[in-house]
Amino acid sequence: MWTLQPFNFMLKNLAKNATCLRSASSLIPGEPKQPHVSTSVVPGPKSQQLIQDLNTINQSSSVQLFADYDKSIGNYLTDVDNNVFLDAFTQISSIPIGYNHPELLTVFKEDHKLRALINRPALGVFPGYDWPQKLRNVLLGVSPGLPQVITMMCGSCANENAYKALFIAYRTKERGEDVPFSELENSSCMINQPPGSPHLSLLSFHGAFHGRTMATLATTHSKAIHKLDVPSLDWPIAHFPRYKYPLEENVRENNIEDKKCLAEVEDLIQIYKKKGTPVAGIVVEPIQSEGGDNEASPEFFQGLQKITKKNGAGLLIDEVQTGGGATGKMWCHQHFNLENPPDIVTFSKKMLTGGFYHNLEMRPKQAYRIFNTWLGDPGKIFLLEAVLKVVKEQNLLDQVVKTGNRLKSGILSLEKEHPELLNSTRGRGSFLAVNAVDTKLRDNIVGNLRLKGVIVGACGDHSIRLRPSLTFQEHHADILLEKFRQVLKEVK
Amino acid sequence: MWTLQPFNFMLKNLAKNATCLRSASSLIPGEPKQPHVSTSVVPGPKSQQLIQDLNTINQSSSVQLFADYDKSIGNYLTDVDNNVFLDAFTQISSIPIGYNHPELLTVFKEDHKLRALINRPALGVFPGYDWPQKLRNVLLGVSPGLPQVITMMCGSCANENAYKALFIAYRTKERGEDVPFSELENSSCMINQPPGSPHLSLLSFHGAFHGRTMATLATTHSKAIHKLDVPSLDWPIAHFPRYKYPLEENVRENNIEDKKCLAEVEDLIQIYKKKGTPVAGIVVEPIQSEGGDNEASPEFFQGLQKITKKNGAGLLIDEVQTGGGATGKMWCHQHFNLENPPDIVTFSKKMLTGGFYHNLEMRPKQAYRIFNTWLGDPGKIFLLEAVLKVVKEQNLLDQVVKTGNRLKSGILSLEKEHPELLNSTRGRGSFLAVNAVDTKLRDNIVGNLRLKGVIVGACGDHSIRLRPSLTFQEHHADILLEKFRQVLKEVK
Repeated sequence: MWTLQPFNFMLKNLAKNATCLRSASSLIPGEPKQPHVSTSVVPGPKSQQLIQDLNTINQSSSVQLFADYDKSIGNYLTDVDNNVFLDAFTQISSIPIGYNHPELLTVFKEDHKLRALINRPALGVFPGYDWPQKLRNVLLGVSPGLPQVITMMCGSCANENAYKALFIAYRTKERGEDVPFSELENSSCMINQPPGSPHLSLLSFHGAFHGRTMATLATTHSKAIHKLDVPSLDWPIAHFPRYKYPLEENVRENNIEDKKCLAEVEDLIQIYKKKGTPVAGIVVEPIQSEGGDNEASPEFFQGLQKITKKNGAGLLIDEVQTGGGATGKMWCHQHFNLENPPDIVTFSKKMLTGGFYHNLEMRPKQAYRIFNTWLGDPGKIFLLEAVLKVVKEQNLLDQVVKTGNRLKSGILSLEKEHPELLNSTRGRGSFLAVNAVDTKLRDNIVGNLRLKGVIVGACGDHSIRLRPSLTFQEHHADILLEKFRQVLKEVK
Repeated sequence: MWTLQPFNFMLKNLAKNATCLRSASSLIPGEPKQPHVSTSVVPGPKSQQLIQDLNTINQSSSVQLFADYDKSIGNYLTDVDNNVFLDAFTQISSIPIGYNHPELLTVFKEDHKLRALINRPALGVFPGYDWPQKLRNVLLGVSPGLPQVITMMCGSCANENAYKALFIAYRTKERGEDVPFSELENSSCMINQPPGSPHLSLLSFHGAFHGRTMATLATTHSKAIHKLDVPSLDWPIAHFPRYKYPLEENVRENNIEDKKCLAEVEDLIQIYKKKGTPVAGIVVEPIQSEGGDNEASPEFFQGLQKITKKNGAGLLIDEVQTGGGATGKMWCHQHFNLENPPDIVTFSKKMLTGGFYHNLEMRPKQAYRIFNTWLGDPGKIFLLEAVLKVVKEQNLLDQVVKTGNRLKSGILSLEKEHPELLNSTRGRGSFLAVNAVDTKLRDNIVGNLRLKGVIVGACGDHSIRLRPSLTFQEHHADILLEKFRQVLKEVK
């Protein structure tokens, strides 16, 4: 007994030092050292009870667990059963710099910002006096080269309104810049008929996800359950490239895939023109996220931009999930070396407010065409301002690249160790994914990781996606990879 | 000179006493006594400069002035030029209990609520532990007899998702409760084709406003500028009753109008059934707001409910603008003595969060059908909780009835004094409107009222609408009526 005590003491001290070192390097003070799951199942008993409770109020069988947001911190999510998870999914990719970041906790201590939050105005009619300055400094400060920006409430609303901007721009060009609306246009649109409500379409891609409201759902093609029973529109749908991995060993094949997909886009534009439903715009994610983290090459996107220009259509890049820094650049499409910025870039999630950037062609001449009561929420802009300050001061885009490299090379190693389980490691920055060989295995991996205290996401039919916050560091990556390795041994 | 001073002093003292009396009766401490406009035009010079500035960032010619939300209080909105307005429009009817209400200023002083705000979760996947309790106590606590509720970000999203619930319920009934989706349904919906994406419609009304996203815009028919150039859907549109005023003198005629409109609804349901686009639901406002504050009788709505039931369609009552207490009841349709609650009631604006109540028929069996990343915002529920506490404690619904009576009888008097200018005073509670004889006169009245420090809204072609907060009292009503009387003398 006497001999054991000092040894235990030594061990504890060692652990303490290690913790100090680790804590010292953590970007968020007070983060736990590692995840900890004490219930035998996740969701644990308290979560299960709350799920039953919530289910009496609405259809909520999608709920995975109930969280305790008072206790969650940084990259660690604590649940109501006191399980502590390392969170590499971050509320479907919408927590930019971790939970309870000290900078965010102080935002509404400032009286002016609190009042902006509780007196939410109709921003298109009676904005607060600092609104132009906030749009300029906060949102235009990280614009992907586009001069205009408008805020919305969420990603679906951002896309719905951006689609309208595409249609309005297309018809304005057709009609002639300064030609007024005809009597017939004015009257026919009131009963949903052309020419006022014209037959126009947007081209989207198989596997895409742009939202769940009617127009965005018509361009969403990721899972049937999202679309079943909801009326839709006969709009063209092209194939998005599906690459062979590793990319460097399949250059020729993937190049052919790009060309095939671009050719189909051109064909569809002609077909829908002949059909009398011309394509007013192309809507595309820089990485198809919900659809399975399908990426495409810079050349593909360059080709797409050329096709839109040639056909008088607009190019909308939907950065709702990819935007905000997770790919190592503020906007994923900045990896593509496009000749010009896209006509429209939509955002939400990590940006905390929905909205879209656009060029002057996409700006309606008249008021009330892109409009609603709230047009966003000033409270969210103040939070975003704090987020972007942290991103800049702590060089978080560099951190994302470092963390991403550690994660990607780690997953590639796992893929090499278990080629019978994993393949197609891919992604940019820490916006990464890997495929399991089938859906069942994928679900097992995601479930077992959760039991070990790591939350990752699923997407597509058999993909695992990582969506860590921008403050996810190498030591977090190491924990994730270690647990992933353990899980692969177990499921094998 | 000597004689004047004491007289002035007396006057000042009188004014002071009057002020004390008035302030004592104000529900919100610190409210100004009366509006005050010091600039010769509204927007004043500082607002004008900011409008120019904002206009370089987006199309913002809808902006009327820039506000100072630090200085605004209760029913008084202060602008950046230091003009103080009595606000009877309240950010398009979305400020429930006035600016900077002391109860709202304290909400986020509480640490738990602040953390719920800054750690906005994906509520359909990882809600906070008190979410079921909040939905139950706050939202279901004021439910119009419907057992289910789900939150959304805004009114358009509430309606878009409620429309999906109507379609899903309709197809579920057609398919059979426990019949699984067919292979063909699963595959066809992925390319927007029937049977998976079925040909179904919603019936809406001329003059309606339900939002500006694609499906909601297809049911919106208030102004051409909202709809021009955006593709739409061939869905049935019926006429909403247009009454003759005063109602008590036109009972027979208005009754015939109801029956004519209901007959058209029945006809359209048959026509669209034959067309192969059956009507899955009827979407209606209890008072058409943007479209001109057109009201309809309880009998009309009772008839509408019967027609939906008979035809296996759902009835959605859109209370985005009418809900939250302004009609003297929490929900306007509670004035209609419906046999059962509507199938769906949507809300937003004064409720601070979007969302909808629904019955069990409108609840999908599967997860992820009515779903998105955020599904609302817990921060808004905490604010709403504080609002509803004030509404209850201060009996604000009673206040609305009192204020409404004062306002309505006052406007009726103005109408009688100036039948050549005004007609058709109407509405419930303080949710009131009156028509000017033409658009130009209406715009003049609204503009001149603004110059006298009173903000009211315009709607339809020639209507003036009042949308005061629930804390708008009789003394506010008196100021509004006094200024209105002055303006009518000037514009005459």
